[in-house]
Amino acid sequence: MTDADKVFSDIEAIRSKNPVVLSITNYVVTNTTANALLALGASPIMSHAVEEMAELVAISGAVVINLGTVAPEYLAAMDPAWTAAGQAGVPVVLDPVGAGASMLRTVTPLALLESHRPFIIRGNASEIMTLAGDAGSAARGVDSTAQTDAAGKSARALAMKHGCAVVVSGATDYVTEGGARVRVLGGSALMPRVTGLGCTATALCAAFAAVNKNPYEAALHASITMKVAGEMAEQRASGPGTLQLHLYDALYNMTAQDVVDHIKLVR
Amino acid sequence: MTDADKVFSDIEAIRSKNPVVLSITNYVVTNTTANALLALGASPIMSHAVEEMAELVAISGAVVINLGTVAPEYLAAMDPAWTAAGQAGVPVVLDPVGAGASMLRTVTPLALLESHRPFIIRGNASEIMTLAGDAGSAARGVDSTAQTDAAGKSARALAMKHGCAVVVSGATDYVTEGGARVRVLGGSALMPRVTGLGCTATALCAAFAAVNKNPYEAALHASITMKVAGEMAEQRASGPGTLQLHLYDALYNMTAQDVVDHIKLVR
Amino acid sequence: MTDADKVFSDIEAIRSKNPVVLSITNYVVTNTTANALLALGASPIMSHAVEEMAELVAISGAVVINLGTVAPEYLAAMDPAWTAAGQAGVPVVLDPVGAGASMLRTVTPLALLESHRPFIIRGNASEIMTLAGDAGSAARGVDSTAQTDAAGKSARALAMKHGCAVVVSGATDYVTEGGARVRVLGGSALMPRVTGLGCTATALCAAFAAVNKNPYEAALHASITMKVAGEMAEQRASGPGTLQLHLYDALYNMTAQDVVDHIKLVR
Repeated sequence: MTDADKVFSDIEAIRSKNPVVLSITNYVVTNTTANALLALGASPIMSHAVEEMAELVAISGAVVINLGTVAPEYLAAMDPAWTAAGQAGVPVVLDPVGAGASMLRTVTPLALLESHRPFIIRGNASEIMTLAGDAGSAARGVDSTAQTDAAGKSARALAMKHGCAVVVSGATDYVTEGGARVRVLGGSALMPRVTGLGCTATALCAAFAAVNKNPYEAALHASITMKVAGEMAEQRASGPGTLQLHLYDALYNMTAQDVVDHIKLVR
Repeated sequence: MTDADKVFSDIEAIRSKNPVVLSITNYVVTNTTANALLALGASPIMSHAVEEMAELVAISGAVVINLGTVAPEYLAAMDPAWTAAGQAGVPVVLDPVGAGASMLRTVTPLALLESHRPFIIRGNASEIMTLAGDAGSAARGVDSTAQTDAAGKSARALAMKHGCAVVVSGATDYVTEGGARVRVLGGSALMPRVTGLGCTATALCAAFAAVNKNPYEAALHASITMKVAGEMAEQRASGPGTLQLHLYDALYNMTAQDVVDHIKLVR
Repeated sequence: MTDADKVFSDIEAIRSKNPVVLSITNYVVTNTTANALLALGASPIMSHAVEEMAELVAISGAVVINLGTVAPEYLAAMDPAWTAAGQAGVPVVLDPVGAGASMLRTVTPLALLESHRPFIIRGNASEIMTLAGDAGSAARGVDSTAQTDAAGKSARALAMKHGCAVVVSGATDYVTEGGARVRVLGGSALMPRVTGLGCTATALCAAFAAVNKNPYEAALHASITMKVAGEMAEQRASGPGTLQLHLYDALYNMTAQDVVDHIKLVR
């Protein structure tokens, strides 16, 4: 099977199985990441109610822990959810939004990673460098433009340390599980001008994790799907507003040929 | 008056009176249900601040209590709001999001229904069956696809017990007040791939409740309006992303003729 | 420089500097105001975590304090954030959403204004009249349609008292810093049918405040930019749903000529 075949095979699995993806995520992207998951074929549940975490994890194919909102009422559910997921063998995708931008955003994912094992970690360059303990990243709030490439070494170290896959999102995505690594090109220059597309990539990682037990493949297929959808959406968009809607349409309509036409990998 | 005439008469009342609809709702749909209400002609207020519930209820034509977010800071406002609404004679529409998916999501609406009387309850098949105490529903998180028809009996029992109208949303909607019942066909197959359209139907129930004192009619007219808007939106959509936006446009632009052209009832 | 030149000069500054705008804002508009800020060229951070306020203020070019969600977990961050901004000289834009609709929404902004100095206050007519202590406004929840003009006197008094600029949004915007005042015409009649466009205007005030130290100019340029974008969006929209997306596209694509073509001021 080619890379494109593998990606589309996972998309078909998501579309046929409609796996539940439980997201403890930030209040900026609850709606948009739910829409992306639905468009792709998954079944999103968004919650941060501690009392129901174990029950919801039990019906989920994957869990997103996204640190975009670090208010205490959101954080409280994360450790119990991850514990339940760990016990049930449900993969967890961590998005350390804004790591490096504040002490709270830096220590919270590090504390979670001390007790729990992620399936995939996805962030931008400065977030990944921060988690790996590498200073010198040009952290600029949650909207860092530090070069993705510079974060490759940090990503490999992080992947090795936690036995997971790591995605560094950017103009070019970098996906690694320590050893193997690949760059994913494509997408659209409009994408950084839409809020929450990083969080959307994280959500897609979870959807792929629900149907593919290999973290590196799940992470890679999610990154490719985002880039393919972004390119497809750009062809119909007149700016970032219309891009966002056409991106959902692209996730919904994506064919095997679309993946073949738009996939761009550099190993 | 035909059914279509009655629906459009209520739409005109909403457009001319701009009733305030107060929503205690979940953080996935605050934006989208507010937009649907505005497009239809109502005036949305979204709040869960306990301190202001009685004041806001006093200026509202109807209240939405939506259990999509069951974190304590959201739940705290629901009982006081419903008490104030009960005293002021303001109709309340209950949406038991995810009933059956977790204990908390099951017991919370049941506890509210012990103390308060709803004007309309709207949910999907498994949520309505759960509230009626009927096991065997294929509950699947908040995204159940259990057949709407199987829930008809549960819906009638629930309506009789609480003296309210009940809407079971699905590919075909089922609307009842115990005795009378009707199926509403139409809409778009893309609608389940947009998050929060069930919650949007609930919000529209409240807008109609603000101008029509008959719960069965208000529920029915809201269901018809959603199906008509969904069909109109599908004609302009290329997927679930664009469907959502065109659905707001359809609510805003809907004419008497549009209702006549798209209404599909089976009694 | 003409008014249009000045507006576009600030837009170019935002696009080249990408100032961070920190928003403590309501859960209805986190996504949409972040998208508007990104489309214009700013870098949004949305947070209400008390622990990180001082750090986030330190990397911000301006701060939004929006009272749309007055639940305690949101309010707690506002005073510390404003204190940090005051010490660091970071401009704060206040949006007293729903002032007049409930006691809590009236006293909260008044209490904040007792301890802190705003750079800009933006609201609709009844909100501004409420803050100025002028009764008789036809307050109607957060969706007031009281005439903007009637609020002009209140706005000037408020501006003088707090040494800030005040924007009264409406079919015609009114911008003042006590002495100078101007009316901004244009926009689209569809805009009141999209939720959160008032909050979006507030967010844009903050983006302009990050690049222009004159509060009156920043407020005026933000109002003009909203009206210009609204007119541009209306040309491509078929209703309020599509208007919202094309508004982001307009903010992203806006040229100097677009500002010249659509600016309408009455002094």
